[in-house]
Amino acid sequence: MTEDSYPSRVAAEATMLPRLDPVVRRDPRHPAPVDAARIDAYERDGFMVLEGVFDEAEVDALRRHADELRDARATLEAGTVIREPGKDDEAAVRSVFAIHRQSDGFAALVADRRLAGLAASLLGDEVYVHQSRLNFKPAFHGKEFYWHSDFETWHVEDGMPRMRALSMSIMLDDNHPQAGPTMFVPGSHRRYVTCVGRTPEDHYKASLRKQEYGVPDHDSLRRLVEEGGIAAPAPRAGSVVVFDCNTMHGSNGNITPFGRSNAFVVFNAWSNRLVAPFGDTRPRPEFIAHRKVDGPIPLTPESAGRRRAA
Amino acid sequence: MTEDSYPSRVAAEATMLPRLDPVVRRDPRHPAPVDAARIDAYERDGFMVLEGVFDEAEVDALRRHADELRDARATLEAGTVIREPGKDDEAAVRSVFAIHRQSDGFAALVADRRLAGLAASLLGDEVYVHQSRLNFKPAFHGKEFYWHSDFETWHVEDGMPRMRALSMSIMLDDNHPQAGPTMFVPGSHRRYVTCVGRTPEDHYKASLRKQEYGVPDHDSLRRLVEEGGIAAPAPRAGSVVVFDCNTMHGSNGNITPFGRSNAFVVFNAWSNRLVAPFGDTRPRPEFIAHRKVDGPIPLTPESAGRRRAA
Repeated sequence: MTEDSYPSRVAAEATMLPRLDPVVRRDPRHPAPVDAARIDAYERDGFMVLEGVFDEAEVDALRRHADELRDARATLEAGTVIREPGKDDEAAVRSVFAIHRQSDGFAALVADRRLAGLAASLLGDEVYVHQSRLNFKPAFHGKEFYWHSDFETWHVEDGMPRMRALSMSIMLDDNHPQAGPTMFVPGSHRRYVTCVGRTPEDHYKASLRKQEYGVPDHDSLRRLVEEGGIAAPAPRAGSVVVFDCNTMHGSNGNITPFGRSNAFVVFNAWSNRLVAPFGDTRPRPEFIAHRKVDGPIPLTPESAGRRRAA
Repeated sequence: MTEDSYPSRVAAEATMLPRLDPVVRRDPRHPAPVDAARIDAYERDGFMVLEGVFDEAEVDALRRHADELRDARATLEAGTVIREPGKDDEAAVRSVFAIHRQSDGFAALVADRRLAGLAASLLGDEVYVHQSRLNFKPAFHGKEFYWHSDFETWHVEDGMPRMRALSMSIMLDDNHPQAGPTMFVPGSHRRYVTCVGRTPEDHYKASLRKQEYGVPDHDSLRRLVEEGGIAAPAPRAGSVVVFDCNTMHGSNGNITPFGRSNAFVVFNAWSNRLVAPFGDTRPRPEFIAHRKVDGPIPLTPESAGRRRAA
């Protein structure tokens, strides 16, 4: 059995464990395509905002790919379309998963050196897509997303061994500061907040709509926020927010007339591929946590730094 | 029967009607206790933020009065304690009504010239309290409050004839910008957005928890926000936010570790006292819309401007 470096959902009391893995690996084989100062800030804060990575024409194309996927929802792989809680009408799509496998446009996006190249640089390894999705936060009635560390779930429910993964959120709309933007707790990625209780089987079906299990406790959240505060960047369309797999984040609901959508890609280090879930449950479906991966995303290492990400 | 200047909830389609009443009356009998420039901004925007109206000792005293009321909830007038939706435990008090009638401390607060004097000045009349309450927005699980014009409800459900009332929110905590602060649509107070549908009897019981009826439509909200944007002030404890009875406002939920509480007072012009509800329903209970009022709040007109509100 694989050793569990980050046990969670096993004890009755929540604890904060130290992070055992570096946040950034400065591996000379994968030169960083962004400034060193930004990488330092990312290492410290657990996230960074890269403005204007994609230009207007590129964003327009991504929006078209997103609309195509949403329009094709009836023909997509079963289960990959997630709706808002309580709303079963056609319009209230909250997420579409596995977009890089269901759309040529998003397949090209994830392999873009500004994304995959940057991920390889930060993780110091070749990378593959652990998860990809489109997120739509509706205007007027967008629901909140409670605080969580992605890694805690990926570790317990998917079997991701170590903290050597990160997420990129590509903004398809200008974000309004009051439209329930994603909030990050700077510095929280350096602690591992364990959650209490066991994971029920098929928990993912409910948790993708509204999280109720595997959530961090109030005391730990209070401590992390006392130390790091809350950052709530509201970047423009075409920007990319990069955040570490263990950065605590969440979002309030949205009653404003401003909806927002983004494409979301999780890159995992090739050396950190999934094993059996550490929570002793059945692995979640392939579209939520890819296991059937032929190989890392092809990158030409010597050219990975050629095109700047910001 | 009294003429209805602002019909709402009578038609199948929402409309925007012009406001028929001045926002500010510059009545020489009631000199303004704040700068003329602020009054002009209030007239234009429909709200203003007055920082530091109450000092630290005063805020401490108000917090004590608030705690006393919350602790005494079992002995307060029936119905005046409102809980968070879905939570019936003792802690999740969302509001306490009629605080100026159930606490000497809050009785003194509402009569303070910085509040009642300012209200008289803006409304150009002697004033009385139409409604008072304490609001507690809990940390981690605070619910959203959808967009609304208070006047629409007060007119239809309480029989307030004209737009000659305003609210003051006295901050008992420092407001965090991500903790679901009240959002205002600047300039929205100049339009009257009628709502569709009829008011059910005893609607108030549900609406105090979560509004579902008498809400403005998406198109009107979009238009108002296109014209005026969204302001979301997050003032410090001791500050007072003053807003017109017809300013469109609402708030997102709150998952941050920061709760917030405020004392809320609605001043109505003495000449604008309630008549029968324009929506043809039974009047709401006294603690939500005071009808049994002996007289206006005693003010010495010549001294109303002596103490500055900001």
